[in-house]
Amino acid sequence: MALQDCIFCKIATGQIPCHKIYENDSVLAFLDIGPLSEGHTLVIPKAHFEKLDQCPPEILSGVIQVVGNVSRAIVSALGCDGYNVLCNNGMAAGQEVHHIHFHVIPRTSGDDVFTEWKSGSCSKDQAELLANRITQNL
Amino acid sequence: MALQDCIFCKIATGQIPCHKIYENDSVLAFLDIGPLSEGHTLVIPKAHFEKLDQCPPEILSGVIQVVGNVSRAIVSALGCDGYNVLCNNGMAAGQEVHHIHFHVIPRTSGDDVFTEWKSGSCSKDQAELLANRITQNL
Repeated sequence: MALQDCIFCKIATGQIPCHKIYENDSVLAFLDIGPLSEGHTLVIPKAHFEKLDQCPPEILSGVIQVVGNVSRAIVSALGCDGYNVLCNNGMAAGQEVHHIHFHVIPRTSGDDVFTEWKSGSCSKDQAELLANRITQNL
Repeated sequence: MALQDCIFCKIATGQIPCHKIYENDSVLAFLDIGPLSEGHTLVIPKAHFEKLDQCPPEILSGVIQVVGNVSRAIVSALGCDGYNVLCNNGMAAGQEVHHIHFHVIPRTSGDDVFTEWKSGSCSKDQAELLANRITQNL
């Protein structure tokens, strides 16, 4: 289903143009319009789902296969040293378009994309309690 | 196949303990030992593959399903506002353990995890050339 006001639904249906990398019946990959690095690509299901945990298994499976194939192609085409695959879910996580999308962000050694990584810590007792709380919701 | 010197292979085979969130025949989810936020979880295939683009389709599909299920459980358990799903591939991308892993990072509105997002731009001509270079490698 396409949502009337969703920009990625409009891209998926061709109402808004994009620089297409790949498409099949259910998945579309295209260049990000505001790239963090050269070749920054988005991979989306054509159908509208807001977040990863709301995406049906068969669709999600199709999307991640394309993420893998596109990543391989980006590494071959650009000769980059690595890449991040990132899916932001919810405004608090930086999701700007509320149609699930995976970023594939090519990386070069020493670039300044995603330099922040502030690891915290967690005691053994805290971790046990936390793991239990999460597993009880599975 | 388990690699002798891979810490995640050792966690997958039980030689190193972890705070387990979920496991099935091919996938394991456990708390990150250096959490970026409370409930930061890693999801890995039990078999050793270095990067996403090297992971066989059926394994990748199983891993992403667990990422979805664990994300849903984290949101229910912790009541967080969102979450990032992140897979770093290659040292240039910040991959520290060279066994593919998806981070699920719970997020709260206004926290200071991943605040950096420096969008660039790309001309239409540049984007067309770039898209062609990548698609030719698919």
